[in-house]
Amino acid sequence: MRTAIATVCLSGGLVEKLHACAAAGFDGVEIMDADLVAAYESPEEIRALCDRLGLTVDLFQPFRDFEGVDEATFADNLRRAEAKFDVMQRLGADTVLVCSNVATATIGDDEVAARQLGELADRAAERGIRIAYEALAWGRFVDDYRHAWRIVEMADRPNLGTCLDSFHILSRGHDPSAIEDIPGEKIFFLQLADAPALDMDVLSWSRHHRLFPGEGSFDLTAFLGHVLRAGYAGPLSLEVFNDTFRQTDVVRTAAHARRSLTWLADRTAEAAGWSTDRLTAAAAPLAVDFVEFKGENLGPLEEMLDRIGFTFRGRHRSKPVRLWSAGETRVILNEKARHEAPQLAAIGVRVDDAAEAADRAESLGAPRVFRRTYAGEQDLRAVAAPDGTEVYWNDQPAESSWVAEFDGGGPEQQLSGVVDHINLAQPWQDFDEAVLFYSSVLGLAAESSTDVPGPSGLVRSQVMRTDDGVLRIPLNLAPPTAPVPAQHVAVRCDDVVAVAREARQRGLRFLPIPDNYYDDLAARFGLDPSTLDVLRELDLLYDRDADGEFIHFYTPIVGGVFLELVERRGAYDGYGAPNAPVRLAAQRENGTVTA
Amino acid sequence: MRTAIATVCLSGGLVEKLHACAAAGFDGVEIMDADLVAAYESPEEIRALCDRLGLTVDLFQPFRDFEGVDEATFADNLRRAEAKFDVMQRLGADTVLVCSNVATATIGDDEVAARQLGELADRAAERGIRIAYEALAWGRFVDDYRHAWRIVEMADRPNLGTCLDSFHILSRGHDPSAIEDIPGEKIFFLQLADAPALDMDVLSWSRHHRLFPGEGSFDLTAFLGHVLRAGYAGPLSLEVFNDTFRQTDVVRTAAHARRSLTWLADRTAEAAGWSTDRLTAAAAPLAVDFVEFKGENLGPLEEMLDRIGFTFRGRHRSKPVRLWSAGETRVILNEKARHEAPQLAAIGVRVDDAAEAADRAESLGAPRVFRRTYAGEQDLRAVAAPDGTEVYWNDQPAESSWVAEFDGGGPEQQLSGVVDHINLAQPWQDFDEAVLFYSSVLGLAAESSTDVPGPSGLVRSQVMRTDDGVLRIPLNLAPPTAPVPAQHVAVRCDDVVAVAREARQRGLRFLPIPDNYYDDLAARFGLDPSTLDVLRELDLLYDRDADGEFIHFYTPIVGGVFLELVERRGAYDGYGAPNAPVRLAAQRENGTVTA
Repeated sequence: MRTAIATVCLSGGLVEKLHACAAAGFDGVEIMDADLVAAYESPEEIRALCDRLGLTVDLFQPFRDFEGVDEATFADNLRRAEAKFDVMQRLGADTVLVCSNVATATIGDDEVAARQLGELADRAAERGIRIAYEALAWGRFVDDYRHAWRIVEMADRPNLGTCLDSFHILSRGHDPSAIEDIPGEKIFFLQLADAPALDMDVLSWSRHHRLFPGEGSFDLTAFLGHVLRAGYAGPLSLEVFNDTFRQTDVVRTAAHARRSLTWLADRTAEAAGWSTDRLTAAAAPLAVDFVEFKGENLGPLEEMLDRIGFTFRGRHRSKPVRLWSAGETRVILNEKARHEAPQLAAIGVRVDDAAEAADRAESLGAPRVFRRTYAGEQDLRAVAAPDGTEVYWNDQPAESSWVAEFDGGGPEQQLSGVVDHINLAQPWQDFDEAVLFYSSVLGLAAESSTDVPGPSGLVRSQVMRTDDGVLRIPLNLAPPTAPVPAQHVAVRCDDVVAVAREARQRGLRFLPIPDNYYDDLAARFGLDPSTLDVLRELDLLYDRDADGEFIHFYTPIVGGVFLELVERRGAYDGYGAPNAPVRLAAQRENGTVTA
Repeated sequence: MRTAIATVCLSGGLVEKLHACAAAGFDGVEIMDADLVAAYESPEEIRALCDRLGLTVDLFQPFRDFEGVDEATFADNLRRAEAKFDVMQRLGADTVLVCSNVATATIGDDEVAARQLGELADRAAERGIRIAYEALAWGRFVDDYRHAWRIVEMADRPNLGTCLDSFHILSRGHDPSAIEDIPGEKIFFLQLADAPALDMDVLSWSRHHRLFPGEGSFDLTAFLGHVLRAGYAGPLSLEVFNDTFRQTDVVRTAAHARRSLTWLADRTAEAAGWSTDRLTAAAAPLAVDFVEFKGENLGPLEEMLDRIGFTFRGRHRSKPVRLWSAGETRVILNEKARHEAPQLAAIGVRVDDAAEAADRAESLGAPRVFRRTYAGEQDLRAVAAPDGTEVYWNDQPAESSWVAEFDGGGPEQQLSGVVDHINLAQPWQDFDEAVLFYSSVLGLAAESSTDVPGPSGLVRSQVMRTDDGVLRIPLNLAPPTAPVPAQHVAVRCDDVVAVAREARQRGLRFLPIPDNYYDDLAARFGLDPSTLDVLRELDLLYDRDADGEFIHFYTPIVGGVFLELVERRGAYDGYGAPNAPVRLAAQRENGTVTA
């Protein structure tokens, strides 16, 4: 499938945008007139640049509010249109978008709209230009794609067709299946945008909060399936108005946008049973293989692991790396770092076929990570997530593969656990891209997001997970002006009270929990006093829902990371979200362990 | 009137919040239980701290979802309540807020709600606690203050009253006049919040976008009038959930909040014809007296003024300051600065009574600005706006007062004009406070805000102005992650084409406008070719609406500022907003003049 993107999705000037689109691998662009108007380059220069970059100008969007108007306005609109047709010919664009009239329409009569669009099409035909008429979700008289299509049918001109925009159709909850009733050759253009589920006016939703496919809650796979079954053969074009993407680096956003289309084409082909446009299959994560912390000074973290009850498994044969484990939880400490304080650097994922998983990630444009491997060592393939976190794949049991590269472990300690979740704080500009990365590369699904009130502002939390919960990655987004929060790994064990008690005896420092919290627990849950006493004594946090209970505790922050130990009772499936404000406040009060 | 604020309005920990509330001059606080739960200090410590700080705990907000439930839930709710009553007694709080049930109500029967609230009140009475029942805008069965009041009346307990929250009433468009039907002594508490006009779900609107009084579009003066006429004698308490205030400095936000109540009390007293709670009257701005730029290197700006056609009026007798003027436009260049590049530092406003205006500003908590004045010089009083811009008042004609302090001017040039508008870019954390400052201190009214797409993100523009337009201050807000945009002063003249032509002959550099812009103008407005040629030749921008025309041009940016020359034809009352994206793009391309 051919791909395109509207220049309005990106930041910067038009020339920069075109370079970025070409670098990202798009076949064409949709030029918003405002971008051209603000450019010093003539339409001829833009056309020549597009030629050189191998980009076609698939659509031009020069004006609004054309049809359904009185005759005087119509005459002026035709004059406007002719002036823009001049620009299109200089630009080498042959399809123009006409959105349903929002502001100036006074006549809600389809015959008038059809006659006026027909006349426009006749004028355009003389220039070899096609008109793509689209229903805006907030059009004055035409706000449904089926209605726009009826008008196009009524006008009955060969160079008049319709443009479909997933946002305008899905935001209104209109059934997209009637798209299949439109002859494919009359769908002149297709604009794709995802969006989060928001209950707000559709105009603001559209102008500020659109997302690239795979990042929101629209079913674009089904939508695109309808369009392709109708016989549409034009480009898949992204039109995403988003306050964040308007600010982020143009090259990076264009690459991000392009990946979303690769993912969508794959999903759609899979759903339809087609063999083209398919990526390597997504390899389902079977388990967390390891997590890796990096930093020049890992001493405090190592002491923490020791006191929690992890077993030291030794040093790597050829790298400045140590391994600690607790049952199926493997923690790699890597001193080869450019920063002193520990950071969460990598996640290892166990899959059935690591090569297939890595191939898929690279097809999706995820940058490959190079790590030197010596003779006799296992070569794990990896890519970098948008925030730089490395994701490794392993299809061998850890204990019989890379773990064997570590020598000289210490005495075995008792703790046994698995990684319950890995909490990744995201810089504001990486958040949406991270959602797409974890859904497309690892096949994780997004749970609905929550806002956690912290002492420095609201923290948005979006859990990405497998259905079975073996890999759960809550992504945290702090306000752009706040420091990026610490990241953490939560280890699940069978008896967190016993783990906490032993850890305390070994001298582990806990994140101290306020007494008032336990008074509140008593009020909320009516826990018996002896249970409360234990929780209070051990700085344990507690949550309960209809499905079960959750007990957990935190270490203090070391550098940019901390650890959590959790126990799930019954079918509790959350993360103790009601306790997050208490944790954030306590972390703020207690600062960071630095030595 | 007594004043209070909910701790949830502020960032940081509870102890910091209490100190900030006291420092800002609040009489009391409304403690959100979540703030207490996350605090290490016991309720007794918080109580003692409030005592020492002179703060009363006017309201405690410990739980949700009480009434309208089945008997088992009700029994558990009473247990929860008793536990929170324990906390209240330790805290020294005697009024508890109960919001209408959102989540657990299953019985939409007022008698059940009244019976359950009555029983709660009886339990509370044993502790000397009062219950304030409030209708949330999104309550399951009770979402209207009149409905909440009917239930309170039905329950008929002396210690059960209602709590009114302006957001929950005005966001739903409910008529607040029926508040006067409630006996004042049964209004146990009053929560005040303003909000911008937004079309979104009321829950998100409430949780993220509330504003302090005077910053949004609610008519809080009328609202408070109803409450006071009902006989309410309790505190005016702010409950403002806002994503920005959650992040800003707690001391500053508390002071900002307190000022909003001073302003509201004044407005309400004025509207009601009361003599208490009045500030000095707002002095209407009669004209812009001067604008001042500061910087160690003002050479490029001075050259610009000269080439535009300003007249050099000389040096100040005792300060490193020079004056340029053009008719009623006076520009002070001040070299006593800590930064090299020019910044817009001050605005002088002509009023009838400068002392009264300055007194009012200081009553509203605006910090006084000190500037050394020497014998025989005019002493202008001033305060600092939230972003640091100084605002001066003068009640004497400039030419016969402070202008006389400048000696040694140059030959008179032809330009004559007045300051049309002063565009102040605001750092993200100052924006809402600035709206309150300019409305309360200068009596300016807020026009509806617009979003301008720029190459680095959307810029929000909010014009503050007098009705007659003699003082117009567009406030610009860029995304928090973008650099603060340059500020500018626009000078209005009678013939901008002539001014531009002469300025060009004198060698003024203009902000160059792309050719494509003129092609677009031709398409949009059908201007005749000779007019277009003149616009194009002189880098002039053009706008037109039903009321008239607007022609303007810009200088390049020098340091953090630039100048605009404008001509208004007919009754055009805007600022050329359609041209702003072109201007922003051109500024980005052309960079900043540094020498």
